[in-house]
Amino acid sequence: MKTQVAIIGAGPAGLLLGQLLHKAGIDNVILERHTPDYVLGRIRAGVLEQGVVDLLREAGVAERMDREGLVHEGIELVCSGRRIRLDLKALSGGKTVMVYGQTEVTRDLMDARQASGAPIVYEAENVQLYGLKDGTPYVTYEKDGQPQRIDCDYIAGCDGFHGVSRKTIPAEVLSHYERVYPFGWLGLLSDTPPVHEELIYAHTDLGFVLCSQRSTTRSRYYLQVPLSEKVEDWSDERFWNELKRRLPGDVANRLVTGPSLEKSIAPLRSYVVEPMQYGRLFLVGDAAHIVPPTGAKGLNLAGSDVCYLFRILVKVYGEGRTDLLEKYSELALRRVWKGERFSWFMTNLLHDFAGSDAFDRRMQLADREYFLNSEAGRVTIAENYVGLPYEEVA
Amino acid sequence: MKTQVAIIGAGPAGLLLGQLLHKAGIDNVILERHTPDYVLGRIRAGVLEQGVVDLLREAGVAERMDREGLVHEGIELVCSGRRIRLDLKALSGGKTVMVYGQTEVTRDLMDARQASGAPIVYEAENVQLYGLKDGTPYVTYEKDGQPQRIDCDYIAGCDGFHGVSRKTIPAEVLSHYERVYPFGWLGLLSDTPPVHEELIYAHTDLGFVLCSQRSTTRSRYYLQVPLSEKVEDWSDERFWNELKRRLPGDVANRLVTGPSLEKSIAPLRSYVVEPMQYGRLFLVGDAAHIVPPTGAKGLNLAGSDVCYLFRILVKVYGEGRTDLLEKYSELALRRVWKGERFSWFMTNLLHDFAGSDAFDRRMQLADREYFLNSEAGRVTIAENYVGLPYEEVA
Repeated sequence: MKTQVAIIGAGPAGLLLGQLLHKAGIDNVILERHTPDYVLGRIRAGVLEQGVVDLLREAGVAERMDREGLVHEGIELVCSGRRIRLDLKALSGGKTVMVYGQTEVTRDLMDARQASGAPIVYEAENVQLYGLKDGTPYVTYEKDGQPQRIDCDYIAGCDGFHGVSRKTIPAEVLSHYERVYPFGWLGLLSDTPPVHEELIYAHTDLGFVLCSQRSTTRSRYYLQVPLSEKVEDWSDERFWNELKRRLPGDVANRLVTGPSLEKSIAPLRSYVVEPMQYGRLFLVGDAAHIVPPTGAKGLNLAGSDVCYLFRILVKVYGEGRTDLLEKYSELALRRVWKGERFSWFMTNLLHDFAGSDAFDRRMQLADREYFLNSEAGRVTIAENYVGLPYEEVA
Repeated sequence: MKTQVAIIGAGPAGLLLGQLLHKAGIDNVILERHTPDYVLGRIRAGVLEQGVVDLLREAGVAERMDREGLVHEGIELVCSGRRIRLDLKALSGGKTVMVYGQTEVTRDLMDARQASGAPIVYEAENVQLYGLKDGTPYVTYEKDGQPQRIDCDYIAGCDGFHGVSRKTIPAEVLSHYERVYPFGWLGLLSDTPPVHEELIYAHTDLGFVLCSQRSTTRSRYYLQVPLSEKVEDWSDERFWNELKRRLPGDVANRLVTGPSLEKSIAPLRSYVVEPMQYGRLFLVGDAAHIVPPTGAKGLNLAGSDVCYLFRILVKVYGEGRTDLLEKYSELALRRVWKGERFSWFMTNLLHDFAGSDAFDRRMQLADREYFLNSEAGRVTIAENYVGLPYEEVA
């Protein structure tokens, strides 16, 4: 098989890139090692920046999002038991975020892929990348036990942190930056109405809480827990009780509980690899960087990578601007590091760090007091939360 | 001897409080264990916030400062070799800072004290505080070998970190918060014209640099050095050479060098004690809190303590508002913690931390990039640098 762009991974990044390229008349094939149901079963983020919303519209997959998604103009933070609303729209000069689950984004993109007839191979096993540096890249894999090969111009590695793409790059070429946080998030998904119309990020002495949502009838709650916790030790009842303990009384009193649809513990990690390009291979999203979920930047940073790579490939095929290919890593990383900074800042601001001393705790408190009460401090949070602007690709 | 307020320490905090009280008709005595020349020999900060400038004017000691002091409307930061000016005045809604050495402030206050005829005792030895909790406070000391006693209503502990005031408070009453940074500042004072009309704060891979000044003919430069460095190993020549290495070429080329008037290494420390009151004793300035000098907050926080204690004492004596005495610690500490936060933030932002890992360094870089290039980020620095507002005492 021949194509212009081989895309490794059918998560939202790979599917969105594929859809954008297809609409722009650039042939592409998507390879995914799992089944569609497996991909859809991964519960992830639910807050989309304006830039990603715009990109989904550009890709023609925004119809259901625009109908069912919830535009949020603010978030609430709880510190020292006090509820403080950040008016994102007013603070950011008119920007908002869209609450629409990553699972739904993925489903819409899968439907669009199917409707387009563009090739996508699920359960593609033993994917291998070749010829990245000699100008003749190709991908091999096995499907139903049969060896396959795709020759292509470029490869987009959208296959996540554990995928083959980054691992194919020689180790001596890459620099890694990593921070592992000493806690995780225990998440619970339930078909219950959200406790509040906007998201609530709460710092408490018992640990961080996030009251998130996927729709007006589906809630997603998170509790900071030690990494030693096991999800099987958390009955629904224990989860709801702990959540109530950590929320302000007036919020806790309004909490509607119900059976969990999903419950899991995710560790918190910051990770970046540099560069994000190796010859004809371009890393996109989680394959190159991970953020802790505080600040909701994971999918949004993948979206900005997709945007940059897409704009570059359009100019490569349309205007012969192959010089732009060498700029992808630098462009993408500039925005990635900003997202990493904000996610690290929000994580540090709102979690309980068991190892911190009395001075650390007071500085963390002083940071919360300052950033939430100074107008300029509030703007710094708001402008990052709604998403910093993309740069032009020129 | 009897007085209304006994003030321990004749640094700028004690002298300013004494002058303000004297002008308000409240009797006070100042005790200082050193000689005036010793006090004047301590080279300290040189940047005054508007609040302290206003307080010096209110105390009637601003005539020379208003004539000789330099109003600065901006500061310059150097990061990744790039010079970035923060227009403090524009960013803070019209506020500026006054460059006027702490030594000069102290000298003006000493002159005013002498002119007023209000009592001040230098070389007061073995100062002891009594009766702080039983409503009959008094101070004993020795002068020229003779025991002395001052009965008073209140005691202001303005005697610095190593003074007797804080040490008199029972240990079990106090909470301490401390951070010792793994480096110091090597400072050099010289009668050379400043290299730039505004202050320059420079982060470099070789360590932090501050180009400060006391006047148009007197410069103060600082180099970040490991705590293991000894001042006797730093000839003037070595200092100037190292300073030039760390400054951007165009700045280094303009540097005028000359013999040092003073050279010393100061460790960097953050420290706060809570509460700042114990019965009739009120801690003021360095007796209760230390900041690293990055951000120039040391004298300014002492000034805000003086302001709060002065306003309270005026209402105590004028309106019988003894209830306000219990509010001093809370009021003062609210502003102290903000100054501590900013000093810690600026120290973390601009210094080289030998023990930091690759991720730490990238987050520090991302913080610099964000706070210096985002308008909101720049406002957060500017509004803190010029000084956050004082609260009303009511």
